Amino acid sequence: MLEFVFHNPTKIVFGKDQTQRIGEFIKEKRCLLLYGGGSIFKNQIYERVVESLKNYGKEWIEKGGVKPNPVLSFVYETIDLARKEKVECILAVGGGSVIDTAKAVALGYFYEGDVWDFFIKKVEIQKALPVYVILTLAATGTEMNRYAVITNEKTKQKFNIDSELVYPVVSILDPVNTYTVPKEQVAYGCVDAMLHLLEGYFTQTYPNTPIQDGFVETLVKVLMETTQKIFESPQDYDSRANFMWATTLALNGLTTAGIGSFGFPNHIIAHSLSAFYDLPHGETLAIVFPAWLKYKFSEKKDRISKFGEAIFKERDPEKVIEKLENFYTSIGVSVRLSQVKIPEEDIPALAENAYGFAKIRNLENYTPQVIAEILKLAK
Amino acid sequence: MLEFVFHNPTKIVFGKDQTQRIGEFIKEKRCLLLYGGGSIFKNQIYERVVESLKNYGKEWIEKGGVKPNPVLSFVYETIDLARKEKVECILAVGGGSVIDTAKAVALGYFYEGDVWDFFIKKVEIQKALPVYVILTLAATGTEMNRYAVITNEKTKQKFNIDSELVYPVVSILDPVNTYTVPKEQVAYGCVDAMLHLLEGYFTQTYPNTPIQDGFVETLVKVLMETTQKIFESPQDYDSRANFMWATTLALNGLTTAGIGSFGFPNHIIAHSLSAFYDLPHGETLAIVFPAWLKYKFSEKKDRISKFGEAIFKERDPEKVIEKLENFYTSIGVSVRLSQVKIPEEDIPALAENAYGFAKIRNLENYTPQVIAEILKLAK
Repeated sequence: MLEFVFHNPTKIVFGKDQTQRIGEFIKEKRCLLLYGGGSIFKNQIYERVVESLKNYGKEWIEKGGVKPNPVLSFVYETIDLARKEKVECILAVGGGSVIDTAKAVALGYFYEGDVWDFFIKKVEIQKALPVYVILTLAATGTEMNRYAVITNEKTKQKFNIDSELVYPVVSILDPVNTYTVPKEQVAYGCVDAMLHLLEGYFTQTYPNTPIQDGFVETLVKVLMETTQKIFESPQDYDSRANFMWATTLALNGLTTAGIGSFGFPNHIIAHSLSAFYDLPHGETLAIVFPAWLKYKFSEKKDRISKFGEAIFKERDPEKVIEKLENFYTSIGVSVRLSQVKIPEEDIPALAENAYGFAKIRNLENYTPQVIAEILKLAK
Repeated sequence: MLEFVFHNPTKIVFGKDQTQRIGEFIKEKRCLLLYGGGSIFKNQIYERVVESLKNYGKEWIEKGGVKPNPVLSFVYETIDLARKEKVECILAVGGGSVIDTAKAVALGYFYEGDVWDFFIKKVEIQKALPVYVILTLAATGTEMNRYAVITNEKTKQKFNIDSELVYPVVSILDPVNTYTVPKEQVAYGCVDAMLHLLEGYFTQTYPNTPIQDGFVETLVKVLMETTQKIFESPQDYDSRANFMWATTLALNGLTTAGIGSFGFPNHIIAHSLSAFYDLPHGETLAIVFPAWLKYKFSEKKDRISKFGEAIFKERDPEKVIEKLENFYTSIGVSVRLSQVKIPEEDIPALAENAYGFAKIRNLENYTPQVIAEILKLAK
């Protein structure tokens, strides 16, 4: 195991009927309540939240309308509002897009320049508003980590920040809040969380990490099994709960602590697909990842066997990739560019765009040529 | 999964050559440097620590002499010293005994009454000095948790505290610092950490917890495998590192979050053995646990099978217990009272003592009769 620092200060409050406790945890007086497309009004989440805020004497303003693949222009708008209203904290009620927007606003609030500077690593993050979370969509893990991903619509860049200042202070994870999440969102969340685990597992530079390997394999198995159970019974508490906790643990730093340097090449390529075609992040990952495994086949085949043994009781690496594709297909997720109508002639432009992101993430060996070859394996 | 709150704010700094960074992490000016029997003078740990403290302009006083199964009288003494010297934090350099003593001193410092009041749950903990840790013995997990265990020599009680105020602020885990830990200590650490995992695994009240199960099974496997490797090559970095991180994760709240209520019955019984005979905690656990499994056999046999399948690829529950005993024996740990010369006629008094602790831990069903029956299975 290589050296690491692990420090995750987010308090997780997990379980049924925890949503209405939010007021108890917020220390500040004035909140910005941020949400997405308005599903929180349909399933009583909104009522529970505002009643709790009232009970604890909080003041708040509201802003809805965060969209999937959240965009920079919305972040700018929300920073202006937050400043005008002098809020002291942000309460994100939603999924990854709402939380990531909250994180971006939280640090843009104190910065006089362009908040995008943080995403292109032009300036260092110094200060952020506290962020609180009520999670309504299990997928990204942002509720317990130091990352946020925002898309700059003008430059077509989907970039991330990484700072200990944006760990949410408290995240409430109530599985009941996800009962109405539709199948395709569950499937995308499953793929996303799997890739959070597997990018590290397949790119790590330090080999002897049985704890991290076992944790990744456990979480991947739970994600796959619970996704299938949720498809059968969308209101099964245990399946929603196990799925939710697995997605959170998939990117909270635990499974990558000590594995040495690692990259997120599949995310980089998938982000380009999302930025160009506004496709769901989970779907683009399911298209890219099997192709990446094929591209890296000779280098990674032992690791693919180990993974296959743990997940599918299958050691033949070619069959492991096939079983993985079959799993994605079984939960209704595309595994080829053609299935989402991306023509082959778009590959060079996509590869060029992804390379821009690769450079920022210190993955310069993912040249446009390499990325194009990977994408060709996903035709 | 049942509802839970998970909040572990300890910063872990893990790896080679991290010891000398301690000064960088301590915010306060005046420290009490606490240690045990003096092994830190033999392996350069002491020099590295004080040089770092000097470099960062810290002042400190020192107190050594914490013994295994740390005692209350030493805690009293150290509180007096800490007050007289007006220290602002405690730096524990050692294993579980040193760290638990540091935690007890940290909260006794601010309390005008008897610090033992916290252990018998007579008063609520309100305030504690910050505790920093340099771990030199991997076993108890106290370096990343909210517990401390102290023995009251007068009353022969080995009791614990449980408070979020005693999470260490920073714990440095440098596997190299454990190269000189002798085999028997490694073996006891292995048993102790295994039981931290398995008490929850075998007593949990909520059944559907595949994440926690997988994490427990992973960590138990790693503990067993690395113990054997350390026996062969005491200075193998990876084995020491994986063992160390496994012992820390074994009791940091992660594997028990969501499993419902659970007990530590084996610890309770084992604590009595340690309190009466000053036997190593790990050894008493290895004696008690197989007997407990036999006592609970009909109720737990499915769980024993699941455990056996994951660890030994063996589903026959009787054979699983036998393999567990064989493992303990293979690493030189006793599994019978007779091996440590505890006569059968002592069982009633031991059972009576353990029952006192059981009541405090809300395990009233562990009557003296029940405990005596379990101990008879360990003759």
